[in-house]
Parts: sequence; structure tokens; C-alpha cells
Amino acid sequence: MFNAAVLGASGYAGGEMVRILDRHPGIAVSHLGAHSRAGETLSAVQPHLTDGGRTLGDNDPDHIPDDVDVAFLALPHGSSTETGIALRDRGITVVDLGSDFRLDSNERYRQAYGSDHPRPDHLPEWRYGLPELFDVTESRQVAAPGCYPTAVLLAIAPLAAAGLVDPSAIVADCLSGVSGAGRALREDLAYGAVDEGVRAYAVTTHRHRPEIEMALEAYGIDHPRVVFTPHLVPMLRGELATVTAPTETDVSTARDALEEVYSDKVFVSVIDGPPQTRWVVGSNRTLIAVWVDEWTGRLIVQSAIDNLVKGAAGQAVQCANLMLGLDETAGLSLDGWMP
Amino acid sequence: MFNAAVLGASGYAGGEMVRILDRHPGIAVSHLGAHSRAGETLSAVQPHLTDGGRTLGDNDPDHIPDDVDVAFLALPHGSSTETGIALRDRGITVVDLGSDFRLDSNERYRQAYGSDHPRPDHLPEWRYGLPELFDVTESRQVAAPGCYPTAVLLAIAPLAAAGLVDPSAIVADCLSGVSGAGRALREDLAYGAVDEGVRAYAVTTHRHRPEIEMALEAYGIDHPRVVFTPHLVPMLRGELATVTAPTETDVSTARDALEEVYSDKVFVSVIDGPPQTRWVVGSNRTLIAVWVDEWTGRLIVQSAIDNLVKGAAGQAVQCANLMLGLDETAGLSLDGWMP
Amino acid sequence: MFNAAVLGASGYAGGEMVRILDRHPGIAVSHLGAHSRAGETLSAVQPHLTDGGRTLGDNDPDHIPDDVDVAFLALPHGSSTETGIALRDRGITVVDLGSDFRLDSNERYRQAYGSDHPRPDHLPEWRYGLPELFDVTESRQVAAPGCYPTAVLLAIAPLAAAGLVDPSAIVADCLSGVSGAGRALREDLAYGAVDEGVRAYAVTTHRHRPEIEMALEAYGIDHPRVVFTPHLVPMLRGELATVTAPTETDVSTARDALEEVYSDKVFVSVIDGPPQTRWVVGSNRTLIAVWVDEWTGRLIVQSAIDNLVKGAAGQAVQCANLMLGLDETAGLSLDGWMP
Amino acid sequence: MFNAAVLGASGYAGGEMVRILDRHPGIAVSHLGAHSRAGETLSAVQPHLTDGGRTLGDNDPDHIPDDVDVAFLALPHGSSTETGIALRDRGITVVDLGSDFRLDSNERYRQAYGSDHPRPDHLPEWRYGLPELFDVTESRQVAAPGCYPTAVLLAIAPLAAAGLVDPSAIVADCLSGVSGAGRALREDLAYGAVDEGVRAYAVTTHRHRPEIEMALEAYGIDHPRVVFTPHLVPMLRGELATVTAPTETDVSTARDALEEVYSDKVFVSVIDGPPQTRWVVGSNRTLIAVWVDEWTGRLIVQSAIDNLVKGAAGQAVQCANLMLGLDETAGLSLDGWMP
Repeated sequence: MFNAAVLGASGYAGGEMVRILDRHPGIAVSHLGAHSRAGETLSAVQPHLTDGGRTLGDNDPDHIPDDVDVAFLALPHGSSTETGIALRDRGITVVDLGSDFRLDSNERYRQAYGSDHPRPDHLPEWRYGLPELFDVTESRQVAAPGCYPTAVLLAIAPLAAAGLVDPSAIVADCLSGVSGAGRALREDLAYGAVDEGVRAYAVTTHRHRPEIEMALEAYGIDHPRVVFTPHLVPMLRGELATVTAPTETDVSTARDALEEVYSDKVFVSVIDGPPQTRWVVGSNRTLIAVWVDEWTGRLIVQSAIDNLVKGAAGQAVQCANLMLGLDETAGLSLDGWMP
Repeated sequence: MFNAAVLGASGYAGGEMVRILDRHPGIAVSHLGAHSRAGETLSAVQPHLTDGGRTLGDNDPDHIPDDVDVAFLALPHGSSTETGIALRDRGITVVDLGSDFRLDSNERYRQAYGSDHPRPDHLPEWRYGLPELFDVTESRQVAAPGCYPTAVLLAIAPLAAAGLVDPSAIVADCLSGVSGAGRALREDLAYGAVDEGVRAYAVTTHRHRPEIEMALEAYGIDHPRVVFTPHLVPMLRGELATVTAPTETDVSTARDALEEVYSDKVFVSVIDGPPQTRWVVGSNRTLIAVWVDEWTGRLIVQSAIDNLVKGAAGQAVQCANLMLGLDETAGLSLDGWMP
Repeated sequence: MFNAAVLGASGYAGGEMVRILDRHPGIAVSHLGAHSRAGETLSAVQPHLTDGGRTLGDNDPDHIPDDVDVAFLALPHGSSTETGIALRDRGITVVDLGSDFRLDSNERYRQAYGSDHPRPDHLPEWRYGLPELFDVTESRQVAAPGCYPTAVLLAIAPLAAAGLVDPSAIVADCLSGVSGAGRALREDLAYGAVDEGVRAYAVTTHRHRPEIEMALEAYGIDHPRVVFTPHLVPMLRGELATVTAPTETDVSTARDALEEVYSDKVFVSVIDGPPQTRWVVGSNRTLIAVWVDEWTGRLIVQSAIDNLVKGAAGQAVQCANLMLGLDETAGLSLDGWMP
Repeated sequence: MFNAAVLGASGYAGGEMVRILDRHPGIAVSHLGAHSRAGETLSAVQPHLTDGGRTLGDNDPDHIPDDVDVAFLALPHGSSTETGIALRDRGITVVDLGSDFRLDSNERYRQAYGSDHPRPDHLPEWRYGLPELFDVTESRQVAAPGCYPTAVLLAIAPLAAAGLVDPSAIVADCLSGVSGAGRALREDLAYGAVDEGVRAYAVTTHRHRPEIEMALEAYGIDHPRVVFTPHLVPMLRGELATVTAPTETDVSTARDALEEVYSDKVFVSVIDGPPQTRWVVGSNRTLIAVWVDEWTGRLIVQSAIDNLVKGAAGQAVQCANLMLGLDETAGLSLDGWMP
């Protein structure tokens, strides 16, 4: 049995981390950290979780007990850098759910965030935690991608790597449930501001675009260019990516290319019709479907995930399982919840 | 390992039965039955469930394999009678999630449904499957109550049994998510007919009122009278009962009476503030809170459950666990899903 | 043409005030006030409204132009007192949508709010703005009730006044859409905290209970006692009151008593089945239905309104129409929006 | 005052037609038609509308009274053809909200619907009712486009006509509220099948693609090719189009091209940030925003409408206003409803 720390346990992704780990056969939660809610009980902060009297500690890496083998960091952007490095220095396996270590160079970080990375020398040591596309088995420190890159990359990377689409003209329109925006108090996330409406945000400027292009390059694709437009949809969970690119192939070749990569991947299923996000809520699965539109010479590929599971906590556990030598699926559900 | 059959596996409660049983350590699904969707794969009918190639058979009790130890019937009203009796005749443990065997006499059945029960002589053999209030351990045939009686009874029965409220003047206003109405195609359950609105239905005439009063009597309460008004709320899951009755007690006495019954019941928690249905979605838990309003001399007690878990499939599994000698919590989650 | 000022124009009720007044044939908006958003354009704050270049001023009553005939105050609790008195001193007709002047005495105010009213001597001068029950024609200063008292009083007052129910044992369970809680930034009103769940709040302690009882007394009912439990429902607009009380009458007598009061009231309709909030969204109508449950000797009466229209801005305009000698329905819609 | 007939008054678009016309200063409803619900009162079928005792007649054009000047057809696909021709033969001005007369040739009709048009010789006589792009003033028979073509064309047509984008590589991802699918009883439109999820449908095969391309050609654009992917979003109303195309222009040139077409169009506003569908619910407005992504050489343009107003009934009234010589905005609201 491995012992885990979850920092940022008061947020949505942190709560999902605890929910998953509490039924994990090989990992037990031994430390919970939070920032402003440190000192409260878990059930005060996450009333859907049963606590057995557990209290949230703080997020200070020095307060993590020595018996911790693996740490999951579900912290706001910028807060993982020093914590992640400190935990690595103590020999703890780390999965960062945040964005601090996802980009592989200071140049890319600057492109995405407009400022220098505070510890750029550390960036190369972190693996990009999308296990269906990048092997993390040998690593002890992983930066797990969020919901948008996960959904887009799983959909288009195998097709682009097989040379079936023009990677310089990818259009990715993504639809996300509200939990993807986190639990911080924001006027634009009030019920009265979200219900019964849809909207895009960060058009042309979202920081996940450079990350997606970086990962495509790392997967062997030259000069990818992605138009990435995220949209907020009035639902709690779920992420649907609709990715379009010029193609000269046919649909069965495209589907074969997906199957070649995913046929032995338990968490990805290539299906026939449009995937629905409802089918994967609560599950670590990704559902993918592909079409070729001969009239326009365009390939359309869609992927559906649960943004808090495969797009956050589930993927983090999947990475930890692989790094710790556990079964990849340990603690993770293939089944979703419906209705 | 016990083998289970689930009849009516294509509905919402049936799907939840399979989801729960598929992660049950002591019960394995060996037969799935459906009516109009017999012959289809499970994943065609319940796309959130992974199937391993399972195909739905029909609901005919004669087609249930001999290795089945326990059958869960999630069938439309009236369809369980002959099936339940036939399965009992074969010695199979039966949990009926429907209403065919919930009432204990033909008189009551007529009061609720306006017609005679087709096999009234069988009614006394069935136990009412609300294990926190009625022992089902020795039984092999249980009629599990639905979400409304479960929520109302768990809230008010201990208080009425302790003589703390006037049982002849109980008012129960209940709010249910849409999945409680089942998966049948109905105009009044279209998205365009449900979203962004609330409404009551079956005011003064709902068939669950006689059932609630029967169970209160069976729990030792004389002459209960319940005004029961169910409301439909635009959400998928969840059931909140707000129950009011005249009282002369104080809140701490009331709370003590609840704790006395529930302190050793793992699935019921008495909490301080208003329970939210969101906190128990996906969980088999019931959250209860009680207030006494001195100004009006009224006690208010609320309970929140997931109508498909504690109000249907979870409670059915809880009953089966008890009848089969398994741990009461086997396969059942205390944690919910949020957000 | 009368000129109007709307203070608090940046909130939900204030926005609805402007939307209604902008199509009112007899009242024109000549001043818009806001607090933190003063200086912004109307369309920046209320993007669904077209502005013609209008800018929000502040809420200071001294900044209201001299040509203003009527002022609508949609301000936070406590903010209307001095403003309302100052505007009255200038001879301006005032409709307060807030709670500062709803209670008729300092004693009642203390019962509801736990502190003394700052200007109790002014309380008797304000009329309670529920025109179907209380004549406001001769007044120039009205405190319009909010959604809960409006819905509950319209449902039960005529029945209690006719002696058809026991007014000392009224149970009112109310369901409100989220806009009823206003536009202020609150953690418990985030989309992630509201969607897919229901909950009660302020059980036994809501400040509207004393207000409801005061209005019942003012309507001629002795010693009313109301158990009032408000619930938050995941929808933007709508308010449903389910009111239960002991009765010895029959349903046709009860219905007659409602019709006697409402047959000549254009904004109230007594209907046969359960009213749905969806049917009155955007409308100033109230739908009422009544049942008598002989088994329990209880009358159940329901009313449905749009909390922002009949429960706020629409009722305010209705009061202003009556005070200004305009047609009661001027600017108000009977039709709702659906779906 | 012109007299109007509304056929298909029992559907969502038909109900919205009646709601708008009932407050139209120049058009009065004198006949309501329905199919299966003929004989019922309007309020039985559309409970949000007040009826004054109006009863639904049938949809037979011969039953339309002689005093009718203008007919609005909100009928299922294929049902308008003979009715529209018969009404034109009687000299009645016709606005068809359906798809029977939208395409301008049998060839195109076959491409979209896979069969011959039953009366192809009539197709050229109908004007395409998108008044911001096509003049309908001189016509007496208009086929008004639905929500998808309206949103996509208003967004991209001016930009393509100005030569600012490559029209052969347009990608249009569209998000629609559920009312866009109509009121027919369908399993995939049940609340339990829609809430809390998103999905695409008719990927590569939607019949609106040929219509969009036809209209682009009619607007002077050579060889347009559009990848069109519609998505269903859990909300009642609203339509958001996200349209991407290769460009070599900059954003201010693009915005100028939009303003040049729309600066004198009262129902279209070019705005700065992403348009939200919530801002136009209940309004006949279209909100448009444009971006140029230099990194990918792509232009992104978004438009937001209310699918039942600008995407159906409102646009139909706008067309009728223009054909009848009324003010273009008569009876139509610029303001929306929020929250």
C-alpha cells in the first residue's frame, strides 16, 4: 500500500482525487492539504465525501509526513513549482495536476503565459502525463494535462502522426462543463451567469494552445498549428472536443489509425457515432469517433471525456499507477454515471 | 460469489442496478433482462456501462439461468407479480424494486391503486425493504420502497414512534429529480417540458401516500395521516423530503430520537443544517436534519437521498446483502459525486 | 408620460425593472442608479438590454433629476430607508422593492430582523404593495412584497379570510429559482453549488414569515401561524408555493372563495391542475390551484409566479400604475415565455 | 391592421409566432392551425399564452378565412409545399418557417434531402428570408432560414463576400438549445437524455450545409465549402455559431467589413468580446464578434441568436413586416430576457 498526499483537496479536482483514492486498492490517502480552508474537516469542505474525522492540513510541502510515497498537486496555477521541486527533492513521486510543469521549455512557457518560468531548468525533468500517447512508466514526476489538451490530443494526435491530416490547419472547438473552471468564486461562474447559455472565452489567446502544439510536436508531428476555441456549457462535468483538419484519406483508414494506437488502451474506445459526454461522466474513459467529409476534404474527429476524471484526477491516478508499478486501472472506473 | 439476475435492465433503475453490482465484491451479474430492448447489447442501451459483450435477454422468469441466486426486478408497475412469485417458487431470493408487493393487504392495494391485487394471498410473505426501520435479514423476498416513501419514512418514523409529533397531521412536501419518473417516453418529461420549471403532480392522489401510512403503522404508529405532495424538479437525481408535524418537544429531544435509531446505521447521518441532495448523489446515504419551530409548535424534518440509489438500486442491494448474509455495505458507496 | 428613476439598476430585479419600463406606454426611464457599477453603460451591466447610450448614475437620491415622478428602489436590505424618505420628501412617488418598509411596526421589524428599524415612525405611512389584496390606489409610497410573501399570500389569504382553513396551522413550502437570491457574488450561488441539487435554507428563521403573518392579519385573519420553509431550485426564475392547512370545507367552496376575490383581478387565474412556474415566466400572472384532501382534512393550495416579475419588478410597476392613475396592466405582460 | 394565420401553432416556433404577433401593432392573429391538437384551446396547448377563448383550427389552407393577409407556416418538413402554393394562389403573403422552399433548385434539394422536390418549378419564386443579406421587400413569398443558416451566414457571409477569407475551407461548429429540435416526442430529447451533457449530431450529413452553401453563392461567393457540425446543448433557447476560415487579413479590416454590412441593420450588432446566447434570448438581435489568429492564419467569427426568435418566429415577422410595408422592427424586441 502506497501513501498519498493530496494538496488542494478543497477544490473540485482535489475532491475528485480524494473520492477516487478512497476506493483505490493500492493507494491510501495519508495527508490532505488546503489553503484557506486548512483546519476544517473534509466533510465541511467536500460534503459528499465521508471523512472518518479527517482534517485538512495545509499545502506546505514540509508538512507532508515522511510516509508519503506519492503526492497529487491540485493547486492554482503557479503554486506547484516550488512545492513540486521540494517534494521531488524528498524522493516523493509527484503528479502535478496544474500547469506549472507541462511545458517543456522556458520559450514555450513564455509564449503561453507571457512571463518567464521561475525554475526553467527543472522543466525537462517532468513527463507529460498523457499515458496513451507518452510513456510515463519510468518517470517519478509527471505534469498531467488538463481537460482541453487531453481531449484534443487523444482525438487528433494519432491521425496527425499517421500523416492523415494537415497538422498546420487544425481547428479545435471544445465544449467544457463548468467544473473545469475550478471552484474559485467568480462572477462569471455564478448560476445566474451560466445557466441557459453558452459562450466562448479566451478566443485565440488560451494558454492551452501552445501546450497542445508542444505535445503534437513531441508526438512526432511537424509544425502543428491549432485554432483552439474553448466554450463554456451549462453542465457540471464533461468535455467534448470537435477537431477538424484537411485530409485526403478515407474514414476507414482514419479509424484504423486510431485503432492502431488505442486498441490496447483500456481507457480509450473508438466508437461509431457521435460520443456524448454523459456517457463518460464519472469514468476515466475517452470516447472517440471520426468522420471524413469528402465534399470539403475535411476530417472531423470528436472525443468526449469527464473533465474532472480523465481530464484531471483520474488521469493523475492513472499516471501514478503506472509510475508506482500498479495496475494502470487500479481505483479507476470504466463505467460512468447515468442519468 | 452469488449470481444475480437484473430484470428491466434497460431502465434508469435497472442501469443503476448493473452499475452497482458490477463493482460488488460478492454478487456477480449473470443475467440481464429487458422487454422491448431484449437482444441488444448492454452498451447500446446503457452507453455509460462497459459491457464485455453482454447482451440483454428478456424478462421471462423461465429464461433466468439455474445458477442465479438473487433476482432484482426493476419492472413497470404490475409486471413483477407473476415473475416474483415464479422466481420465489424456484427458490431464488428476490428484491422487487417495483410496487407490486409493497402493500401488505388487498384492502390497502385497492386504496392505492383502485383495483384488486391479482394475487393478494402472496402479499403477506413479502417484507418491506427499508432495512433501517424493518428487519429483512430472515426474509428471502423483499419489496423495496421507492424514493418518496424511503425519504419520508426515514425522516418522520422515528420521531412519530417516539411520540414526539402528532402522526395524524403530517405534511410531506417532496422534491424529486426527473430520473424518478423512469425512462419511458412521455411528453411531460421532455427536456422542453421540464427544464427551468417546477411543478407538483398527483396532488392528494399519489399512490405512495397509502404506502407511507402503512409503513408508519407497521412501525408502531397509530392512525397516521399524511398529506403527501410530490414535486418534479429540473435535475436528474435527488430527492428531498420536507416533513412537518405538530410537536410539543424541543429540537434536542427530537434529534436524540433520530440518533437513537440511526447512530448504528451506516447509511443514515443526522446533520446540523439543511441537507442538500447534491451531497448524496451516487451515494446510498440518507442525510437528515430536524428543527422545532416554537412559534408554530411545529417540527420540521428533512431528508435527502439519491432517488436511484437509496431510493431504488442501492437500497435493493442493501436488502440483498442482508438477506444473503453479506456485509450490509458491500458494493455500496457512502461517498457521493460532486460537483 | 411619467418619468421614472430606477435605483439598483445593476441587479436582477433592477434589470427587470428597466426591461419592463422600456416598453411601458406611460412611464419612461429618466434616471438609472447603481452602486459599484455607477459610471458604466447599461449594456455593460445588463447586456441583454439595449441602451441608446444610457449610463448608470449613482443611487444618491439627491442626484435624481427634478423631472422624476416615480422612483423604483431595487436596493439591498437596509439601503432604502433614508433614500425612500428623502424621495417622499421631494414629493416623488416611491415603490420600494426591498424590505425596509414592508413591516408595519418596529415590533414586527425587530421580530424579523433582530434589531430596531432606523426610522420606525415612518413605517405606518407605507402601503403593502400587493394590489390584489390591499388597495394602493390612494397611496404615493408602497413597499412591494417579494416573491415568497406574494406567492403565499395570494394562495392562502382569501381562503383564510373566508374562514375555510385554520390559520394557526399553515404550512408553506416554497420553491424559488436562483434569481430570487439576487446578483451578489456568493459561494453558495455558484453554478457548481446550485446545479443538479435542491436544498432548503433559513428553516424556521426566514424573515418573510413575520411579514406573511402581518399581511394575513392586515387582511383580517386572526392569529395566523405559518411554518415557512424556502427551498432553492436549479432554475433561473420561478416561484412555487405549496400551502397546506386544516380544513373542513370542500374543494368547490374553496375554489369559489378564490374566484370571489380574483375573478375581476386580471393578473390572477384560478386553474384546475397543478400550476407550473414555466407557464408564468416573463408574465405578471399568478396561477393558483386548490385541492381538499378529505382523508387528512387538509386543504392544499398552490400558486406559481415569476419571482422577478409578479414577485418583484412587475408587481412594482403594477403598484405604480395604480398610484399614478394608469391602467393597472400598462407595460405588463400576461403572456409568458416558453420554452 | 393586417390579419395573420399561424399554422402549426402548437409547436415551439408556432407558440413563439403567436406570442410575438399578439403584441404586434400592425398584425393581428385571426386564425390558428394545428394538426393533432386541432380543436383544443390555445392555452391548453401553449399554457404560457393567454387566449381570450381562442381555439385551434386545423392546418388546411382551405380553412383559412378570407380576411387573412399573411400566413406563417410553422409545419414539419414537407408539409408546407402544397399549403404554401395554395395560399399564394389565393394571393396571401406567405412566410414559411420550414425548409420546403429554402433551396433554389431541385438539384440542391436532392443534394440536401436525397429525393426530388415535389414541386420544383415553384422553387425559384420563393425568396430566402434573411433580410440583412437578401432583400425581401418586393416579394410576397419567403422561405425564412432556420437557426443554423441564420447564425452561420450572418457571421461569415460579409467576410467571405469581401474576399477576406478562403470560402472553400470554412469550418462551422454550432451549438443549439433544445427547442431548436422542435416539440415532437423523441427519446433523445427526454430530459434524462439531454440534461448535463453535450453531443454533436448529423456530423457531415446535416441538410443545412447545402443551404448555407447555396446562400453564400447567392450572396456572391464562389465555390464555398462548409464543414458544418451541429451540437445539442442542455439549454432551452440559444444558438452560437463558431466559424473559422483561413485569412490573410487583420482583425480591424474584418470588423470593418462586418460593420459596412451591418451598421444600418438594427437587428445585428458587432461587439468586442465573445457573444453570449443569454444576451439575446427573447430578442431578435444577432451579436457578432470577430478575431484573427495570426499564428494560424485563421479568422474566427462568432454569432449568437435566439433560435426561436431570430432563428425562427422573429425573423418570420421581420420578413412579413418588410413585405407588408410595415416598420421592420414592428412587434419585435431588441431587448432580451435575463437572467
